[in-house]
Amino acid sequence: MSERIITAAVIIIGNEILSGRTQDSNLREIALTLGEWGIRVMEARVIPDIEDTIVSVVNEVRALYDYVITTGGIGPTHDDITAESIAKAFGVELIEQPQIAALIRKYPASPDVLESRLRMARVPAGAGLVENATGGPPAFFIGNVYVLAGVPPIMRVMLTSLRSKLTGGAVLQSRSVTAYLEESAIATPLQDLQQAHPQVEIGSYPFFEGGRVGTTLVMRSTDEALLDRVMAQVEALVATAEARSPVPGA
Amino acid sequence: MSERIITAAVIIIGNEILSGRTQDSNLREIALTLGEWGIRVMEARVIPDIEDTIVSVVNEVRALYDYVITTGGIGPTHDDITAESIAKAFGVELIEQPQIAALIRKYPASPDVLESRLRMARVPAGAGLVENATGGPPAFFIGNVYVLAGVPPIMRVMLTSLRSKLTGGAVLQSRSVTAYLEESAIATPLQDLQQAHPQVEIGSYPFFEGGRVGTTLVMRSTDEALLDRVMAQVEALVATAEARSPVPGA
Repeated sequence: MSERIITAAVIIIGNEILSGRTQDSNLREIALTLGEWGIRVMEARVIPDIEDTIVSVVNEVRALYDYVITTGGIGPTHDDITAESIAKAFGVELIEQPQIAALIRKYPASPDVLESRLRMARVPAGAGLVENATGGPPAFFIGNVYVLAGVPPIMRVMLTSLRSKLTGGAVLQSRSVTAYLEESAIATPLQDLQQAHPQVEIGSYPFFEGGRVGTTLVMRSTDEALLDRVMAQVEALVATAEARSPVPGA
Repeated sequence: MSERIITAAVIIIGNEILSGRTQDSNLREIALTLGEWGIRVMEARVIPDIEDTIVSVVNEVRALYDYVITTGGIGPTHDDITAESIAKAFGVELIEQPQIAALIRKYPASPDVLESRLRMARVPAGAGLVENATGGPPAFFIGNVYVLAGVPPIMRVMLTSLRSKLTGGAVLQSRSVTAYLEESAIATPLQDLQQAHPQVEIGSYPFFEGGRVGTTLVMRSTDEALLDRVMAQVEALVATAEARSPVPGA
């Protein structure tokens, strides 16, 4: 039952995320969506709007994973340098894409406003288009690198249009069990269970909810039957531990 | 007025962030806090709970920046592998830290629960402690790598205790101006202003607010007098553009 795992990296491009001014939400959205398509996000990078950095990070990760998704830096202002950086990463010219330029030219504008808007028509030579159902300019892809907007509602719409472009593998299914126990109360049996089932990834995540300590146990695997068996065992070990120590630390 | 910029990288360790199950909020918190201390976050990595990955990423970034802050993977369960991975990255033994172990042993527990809790006393040999004002086990640092919990309220408390350990440089101050204009309406004068003032980083961030299009212009510099002069120029160019095109695209 060995199957190839399809992988991706996400590159969040933007000084505003690294300064803390803006809370990123695109990584989570992309990870959940690609996960549903059978593509696993293996790493994410948050990097500044610096050309050399974008070029080297894109070239590093596009060699490591099946797909790379970038967000940010494709607007009309001087600080939007993603398109030219990706062109450099691929060693190709930055060109004015005729379809995008025609779309932009439909709207009346003064010469300098038009010139700024046309920055959004610049793509690396050989790039394909990523549709933008908001009616705004499309984004683009080149090789295995998909370049999306950073503004979340636009990113989301562009991401949807990748569905037909990306090929996923088996979907990593998940199950979760909530235990009102501190993690150490179940750590030992949980470790034994993990060792018995290396094909299931078992994660333990503590939480504090209205002064109450708890742990969410998350199981992930592409094998649903196995996942259900392991979940039943997790539920049993949680029930045993709750019966033994209803109050954390008691 | 050349001064050394103090830099940091953040490493978010955790499968739950990469799967999208959990929305990270630690990066923003760390970036804002370090920013106030005069330390700039230059990149962030989100990586899985895989030892080889943690070792190689930690070793890569600790050589590049003044400080490295990691979050996640220091709890008592089998999937918490950060401490042992950091020890491997530094090529030192993982030891039981006597102060942390003594704190943990104060609380009664069955042998297997105690054994699990004592996983949180394991630190790389030579590590110093990062206080944990919640009363839970302290975290640790070794070299320039500061290893914090992943659960946000605990991370925040640990981060506060780094104040006396980290040395910042000049604080990057920021100003922002909100324009109810699309970005392209001000892109040209903004680019001219950026070219005239390379010491000020000018960012343009579009937003959509109740159907209204706008742009937040953010200026950042360590020189406050210069920043105020540039902000006045940004306000002037926004006023000019708003007078010229009160309705986007009109």
